[in-house]
Amino acid sequence: MFYLKPKKIDITVGNRYVIVVNEKTAHHMDLHAADRIFIKNGQNHAIAIVDISNHETKDGEIGLYLDTWNKLQVIRGDKRVSIEMAQKPESVIYIREKLDGKKLDAVKMNKIIEDVVKQKLSDVELTYFVSGCYVNGLDDKETVELTKAIVKNGGKLSFKNKVVLDKHCIGGVPGNRTTLITVPICAAAGVLIPKTSSRAITSPAGTADTMEVLANVHNDAAKLTKIANKVGGFISWGGGVDLAAADDYMIKVRNPLSLDPQGMLLASILAKKHSVSANCVVIDIPYGPDVKVGSIAAAQPLKKRFEKIATMLGMKIKVVLTDGKQPIGRGVGPILECIDCLQVLNNDPNAPKDLRTKAIYIAGIALELCGKAKKGQGEKLAEEMLKSGKAAKKLQEMIDAQGRTNIPLTPGKFSYDVKATKNGTVKYINNKVISRYARMAGAPINMGAGLTMNKYIGDKVKKGDVLFTLYAESAGRLADTLESVIPDQCYKIA
Amino acid sequence: MFYLKPKKIDITVGNRYVIVVNEKTAHHMDLHAADRIFIKNGQNHAIAIVDISNHETKDGEIGLYLDTWNKLQVIRGDKRVSIEMAQKPESVIYIREKLDGKKLDAVKMNKIIEDVVKQKLSDVELTYFVSGCYVNGLDDKETVELTKAIVKNGGKLSFKNKVVLDKHCIGGVPGNRTTLITVPICAAAGVLIPKTSSRAITSPAGTADTMEVLANVHNDAAKLTKIANKVGGFISWGGGVDLAAADDYMIKVRNPLSLDPQGMLLASILAKKHSVSANCVVIDIPYGPDVKVGSIAAAQPLKKRFEKIATMLGMKIKVVLTDGKQPIGRGVGPILECIDCLQVLNNDPNAPKDLRTKAIYIAGIALELCGKAKKGQGEKLAEEMLKSGKAAKKLQEMIDAQGRTNIPLTPGKFSYDVKATKNGTVKYINNKVISRYARMAGAPINMGAGLTMNKYIGDKVKKGDVLFTLYAESAGRLADTLESVIPDQCYKIA
Repeated sequence: MFYLKPKKIDITVGNRYVIVVNEKTAHHMDLHAADRIFIKNGQNHAIAIVDISNHETKDGEIGLYLDTWNKLQVIRGDKRVSIEMAQKPESVIYIREKLDGKKLDAVKMNKIIEDVVKQKLSDVELTYFVSGCYVNGLDDKETVELTKAIVKNGGKLSFKNKVVLDKHCIGGVPGNRTTLITVPICAAAGVLIPKTSSRAITSPAGTADTMEVLANVHNDAAKLTKIANKVGGFISWGGGVDLAAADDYMIKVRNPLSLDPQGMLLASILAKKHSVSANCVVIDIPYGPDVKVGSIAAAQPLKKRFEKIATMLGMKIKVVLTDGKQPIGRGVGPILECIDCLQVLNNDPNAPKDLRTKAIYIAGIALELCGKAKKGQGEKLAEEMLKSGKAAKKLQEMIDAQGRTNIPLTPGKFSYDVKATKNGTVKYINNKVISRYARMAGAPINMGAGLTMNKYIGDKVKKGDVLFTLYAESAGRLADTLESVIPDQCYKIA
Repeated sequence: MFYLKPKKIDITVGNRYVIVVNEKTAHHMDLHAADRIFIKNGQNHAIAIVDISNHETKDGEIGLYLDTWNKLQVIRGDKRVSIEMAQKPESVIYIREKLDGKKLDAVKMNKIIEDVVKQKLSDVELTYFVSGCYVNGLDDKETVELTKAIVKNGGKLSFKNKVVLDKHCIGGVPGNRTTLITVPICAAAGVLIPKTSSRAITSPAGTADTMEVLANVHNDAAKLTKIANKVGGFISWGGGVDLAAADDYMIKVRNPLSLDPQGMLLASILAKKHSVSANCVVIDIPYGPDVKVGSIAAAQPLKKRFEKIATMLGMKIKVVLTDGKQPIGRGVGPILECIDCLQVLNNDPNAPKDLRTKAIYIAGIALELCGKAKKGQGEKLAEEMLKSGKAAKKLQEMIDAQGRTNIPLTPGKFSYDVKATKNGTVKYINNKVISRYARMAGAPINMGAGLTMNKYIGDKVKKGDVLFTLYAESAGRLADTLESVIPDQCYKIA
């Protein structure tokens, strides 16, 4: 036990207790950067992480950030606080085990995830956990336990309904916004579908970004439960609820190296379904040269793994492998994708057929999976929901329940037609480049920015035909984007 | 390119540029925690890491810590600074490659270490590098390249001498302070031996802690070069020089999980030798049940690896495997070990024989390795240096050159004899428990604290005989230690 004089550092760290001592004090106290200490002031105490800096404190002082200062109820003029070394959380031992190639059981996995959520682990320790899962893999049992642990240590939505449906797309296909169509279709058919979605991280739009054009997507668990019970479903941002909270911490340390350990990917997706009490799940895995899963051969084992893990978790699951070789629908970007979805829902003859077909296909499978339609009759029921206008009406009910945003459905004011440089047939479209252009133009931050597709694979084109049209909300942004656009980079015409 | 209003945060981070934005601004700007941005104010710019906190900044503001504020030469009242996304350093790609099991060549290894030293990598990225090296291992070529990269990106000591000697002990044996004897012996025999040492991290004393009892060990590279050229050697703290700087950063992220990837351990040790221009190196690997290397069988491959890597680096090397089953010498703790070493150097008949024998053994091998003595004659020469008083005189020259500290060589005032609980023969002594007791008593922070050994393996003891004596600098500390001391925990008598 040692004593140091507290010095207030008028900054809030926000997510953990941090203290600062200078090098000399650290040496005398035998403290090292990132050590954990138990710090006490009278009856008030905290576990804090040691930072060493010669800038903020003198010898014998301990710098307390505002969070720690307040937690310990220090008063200016207080002469001393006591400190002693704190034990490392036991989950650090399990992380080491995983790094050493051992298997983690339910108890150990849960302890790690509990400590992640309670923010007891440093970023370095969490990174070792991700490294262990990445390099040594997670077997089926570990993946199930990881999923359960994520669910257990996060928020939940509970429903009385016997059937709760959810769907998920692995992503990577620009414009593939089926969720805004399939969710109202299924809800209109009488299935409860509480859909939480993500925002775009590296893509031009996530489902939450697109829905946000129409409705408020920041809703807490209580409000979402109420909406689902009243309307039969919603489309809201998952980050607004505390579902699968551990996942966000893990993604934070996965991002710097873009690591996607398969077991973590599965656990992350299925935990989100599990935490909204879904027991019927449709997973869409698009495959193609420029999406996450490169080929049907690569998709097959992932499909099997999803089926196995979901079954072990007690969920009914249907995994579909879909063509992801080019964008779906016309629009790429929140407002432009929204326009496509509303055209489909409103039975507009101009609606993009590929998007309509895919949305019906997914909805059909979902309706069959949860017993609303007999085998082979799902698509028919889905189409009825569309044609009758029931699905369109259901989406409006969701929008009203979530809160209408009234954003005008107008594409960015500044546009530019990107044209073919030669005659021929479109042989290939690069999804990644299409996404990049749409992001450069401002999507998803500028909701009206992005692009609309005009030519698809197999289409015959003449030199000068419009391939796609870029939209931006400022002339400068459009000009900046055009500097990088090379038609031959994303379209192969031969 | 975006613009935000700068807000000063009156804290110095000290080792990198960090900016803070709130969640809303982060969302609008598409920024994520740990992103790297390029930030510019007129002609002044920096690469900074993004932190997200709702506490310090309002919408549209960017919080600049003092380092960043000064670097950008912002003036209070400035309306805006520009920010844009910065590229990740290319070393991140190589780190990912290592994690994926690929081999790193000289260029990639050097780029990683260069970015470590330039602090371009976040702790998370550096942790992935350590994970990759730990799980996938480093082969001989990678280990050599890592060593070279650490040397290249750190400080160096250069000498005109043809022969520069260094020695290193893997550690773990309490009291094993041969360095304070072998270094003056070798220097007295006319060999240049610039010895940088570490402080204790988890042990009761490091060589630097023990030397600090006698002399100043905070010396910079210029002063050390001067001392070595004048006196023929020194014993100083490595952390005071900029040698093998990358190593300290890596150790910081290795510590939380106590990871010792073998290639990193070798590179770390040999880089420190290489950076003082050593071309003759003696490595002491103690083996035993409670030191780092558990058995002679485990020591053999490590010995071979050391020999191979050092040879590839152009060093002459001799690796010795020594008995590490019990403490060496009597004292454990800075002053108590110092007393032992001075007794040996002063030919005191009471000097601990095991310490004297081992110091002569190591010095003999070193003198033969660097050609000062013929094969088989090294120990004789070493003994001459001791007996003649030349080694003792050499140590005093080093102390004078480094700066005498004049700390009284008195053990802690408060002592307690720990006694045998039964009759028999000592069969086993637990090094780790001995070290723990010495640390609990206050070593190395309290220089006079620790313990002195009285009985060794093979000794016959009677119930009530003193096994070891604990020393502390305060009665409270002694009492605290005694609460935990259980004689049967560290001595097996049968």
